[in-house]
Amino acid sequence: MRPIITLTTDFGTRDSYVGEMKGVLLSLCPDAHLVDITNEIAPQDIQAAALVVHSMAAAFPPHTVHLVVVDPGVGSARHPMACATPQGRFVGPDNGVLSLVWQQAHDQNPADAHAVVLAEPRFWRPTISTTFHGRDIFAPVAAHLAAGTSLDELGPPLAAPVLLPLPAPTWEGPARLCGEVVMVDHFGNCISNITEAHLTRLGPAPALVVLAGEHRLALHHTYAGVAPGEPLALVGSSGRMELSVRNGSAGHALHIAPGFPLCVERRSAE
Amino acid sequence: MRPIITLTTDFGTRDSYVGEMKGVLLSLCPDAHLVDITNEIAPQDIQAAALVVHSMAAAFPPHTVHLVVVDPGVGSARHPMACATPQGRFVGPDNGVLSLVWQQAHDQNPADAHAVVLAEPRFWRPTISTTFHGRDIFAPVAAHLAAGTSLDELGPPLAAPVLLPLPAPTWEGPARLCGEVVMVDHFGNCISNITEAHLTRLGPAPALVVLAGEHRLALHHTYAGVAPGEPLALVGSSGRMELSVRNGSAGHALHIAPGFPLCVERRSAE
Amino acid sequence: MRPIITLTTDFGTRDSYVGEMKGVLLSLCPDAHLVDITNEIAPQDIQAAALVVHSMAAAFPPHTVHLVVVDPGVGSARHPMACATPQGRFVGPDNGVLSLVWQQAHDQNPADAHAVVLAEPRFWRPTISTTFHGRDIFAPVAAHLAAGTSLDELGPPLAAPVLLPLPAPTWEGPARLCGEVVMVDHFGNCISNITEAHLTRLGPAPALVVLAGEHRLALHHTYAGVAPGEPLALVGSSGRMELSVRNGSAGHALHIAPGFPLCVERRSAE
Repeated sequence: MRPIITLTTDFGTRDSYVGEMKGVLLSLCPDAHLVDITNEIAPQDIQAAALVVHSMAAAFPPHTVHLVVVDPGVGSARHPMACATPQGRFVGPDNGVLSLVWQQAHDQNPADAHAVVLAEPRFWRPTISTTFHGRDIFAPVAAHLAAGTSLDELGPPLAAPVLLPLPAPTWEGPARLCGEVVMVDHFGNCISNITEAHLTRLGPAPALVVLAGEHRLALHHTYAGVAPGEPLALVGSSGRMELSVRNGSAGHALHIAPGFPLCVERRSAE
Repeated sequence: MRPIITLTTDFGTRDSYVGEMKGVLLSLCPDAHLVDITNEIAPQDIQAAALVVHSMAAAFPPHTVHLVVVDPGVGSARHPMACATPQGRFVGPDNGVLSLVWQQAHDQNPADAHAVVLAEPRFWRPTISTTFHGRDIFAPVAAHLAAGTSLDELGPPLAAPVLLPLPAPTWEGPARLCGEVVMVDHFGNCISNITEAHLTRLGPAPALVVLAGEHRLALHHTYAGVAPGEPLALVGSSGRMELSVRNGSAGHALHIAPGFPLCVERRSAE
Repeated sequence: MRPIITLTTDFGTRDSYVGEMKGVLLSLCPDAHLVDITNEIAPQDIQAAALVVHSMAAAFPPHTVHLVVVDPGVGSARHPMACATPQGRFVGPDNGVLSLVWQQAHDQNPADAHAVVLAEPRFWRPTISTTFHGRDIFAPVAAHLAAGTSLDELGPPLAAPVLLPLPAPTWEGPARLCGEVVMVDHFGNCISNITEAHLTRLGPAPALVVLAGEHRLALHHTYAGVAPGEPLALVGSSGRMELSVRNGSAGHALHIAPGFPLCVERRSAE
């Protein structure tokens, strides 16, 4: 089974940084298949990276190693970490960027979520810069994991990784759930923290209405449920409710950014 | 022969979508070499994607599978399709995005252009979202093709794929051909629908003049034919006539976007 | 040992050009592992490309072939070249883009820096466009090198490659060194031409002060040496002194672009 290592960073795509990490990875694990997920997480946007990692890791084989470097605290006291779940292995800073995948595994079965502090310099580069642990600690550890090193060799257990304070939606009675937009994607789809499971508890889709600012939107099954240029709500490919504009950008058209509040109500409550 | 799968999408490079497709591809075809062509086709720009696919596929080995997802009609009645030509195999929506490669093969020999409707769910993911057929239908089909499945197994023949209404140039007499800009590239080169073959029919390059808005441009063999900062016309690497500015951007300098009209005349016609 | 070929270009990421080069590479060297370094060097920015190549090549195994195409002189008299150093092999135009890696090897041992003019069309594509030597000359040569062709077969020796006029810092007495910013990275870090070795000659870090426009900055060991939003100087991961803003952009906050002058002084000189 050929090793796979994915890369998710906020390093951008015009400097040497991603290339330096790839060189380290291939030096230590020459057989690895390197897969760019994205290097364009907004600088230091831990929440966006955590959501991207959570969504994409589910599609990869479980022997994949996911290298995730969004690390505003590089050189400070934050720990470098790695974790293993049934969905894959993950390497990055202990700042919340890995918390969604760790938490999901932990919620299903605490015995399935293993985390360690990276504390064994023999798996790092010989010299560690203070500004680029991606190249000097995280990449070599990811390469060693992909090449066969076990998680336990990397350092002592990390009992409680830093958890991302991802906002949870709140019930305002049994017929109204309020949450917020957690990410606006490249197309301008506004992805919320309300999931398909939440909606199922509220009622059948035709009975629901989404309130977002001045907008009242119906829940549709597909973009084709409205005319081009019209807004709608639907459950997106990640299982979260999204606000969209057919063939357009809901982010631009509705002036929505992460943090924007929204609620879903049963129509009978009107 | 190691399988090769290329990716051309409008998914952008900061979300999880491209990564999710790559995970699906490697889950089903672990030996595949994944090659990013571009994930930055302008959202829903079918014509730009069709042109990119046409240009790059010519450089790849014929056993390559090209996965092309620019799919504004996802979830509507448009068909998912795959086709095979002497230049490679292609998977994507039947909305014109594959029409240039299909048409080229069909024009040379109808027997060499095969297309099918994707109609066999056993080659798809078990659950199909309504918004992301790239992950749930197109990527798994591309992986199966790369891993050895034949085109015929994927579904029934598609006799007439949707053709892109790419504008054709028109002759205004034997000494004047008028067309338009079909793409402006990253450097600002304005690529037209007039080809080297058209120019050969008009006359030798020194005898021709290109009229574009207020500009009268000579046809040169290379950028070095004019001084830095000066505009020129030349035949670009795709065999199409382009307007360029040496070491600059013709798109910016000449205020040109796709659709901009231009004509080529024999100078003797002045 | 699997061949590795990296790509560094100014071709952008939305056209077919990078894909065309990848197709040529995989056609001629099917086992190659292709690694994108960056395709977003600013158009025709030879200095930025030379710095990126210099930084990233150090992290790759020495059998790697680095394909570098920033080529504003394509079609003019500039030579196509390749060179070999203890850090790797490099293919690109002879316009300075490979000069930092060549010069570094040459400075250490002239016998270790080999360069040749690409003069053997049998290693090129059969037809050479005048605008895209990346696809028609550089990519096929890189593929042949990666597949086992020796440097000497490609053409005659190139005794004196074009050197980049990268500005060198100047000593204004033994306690003051003046240089300039040579690159501003994705995060807004302003990377100078003053190196850690220069600073060591000036004195211990706590005794030094950096003067940049109206700013007087202390030299810190890590970003955490100042509060979020505050500017600082530090030695970055490439061994060069950088001006940074913790969790921010020094380029924006301090209005700094490449060419911006700065000096380092011993505090006792105040």
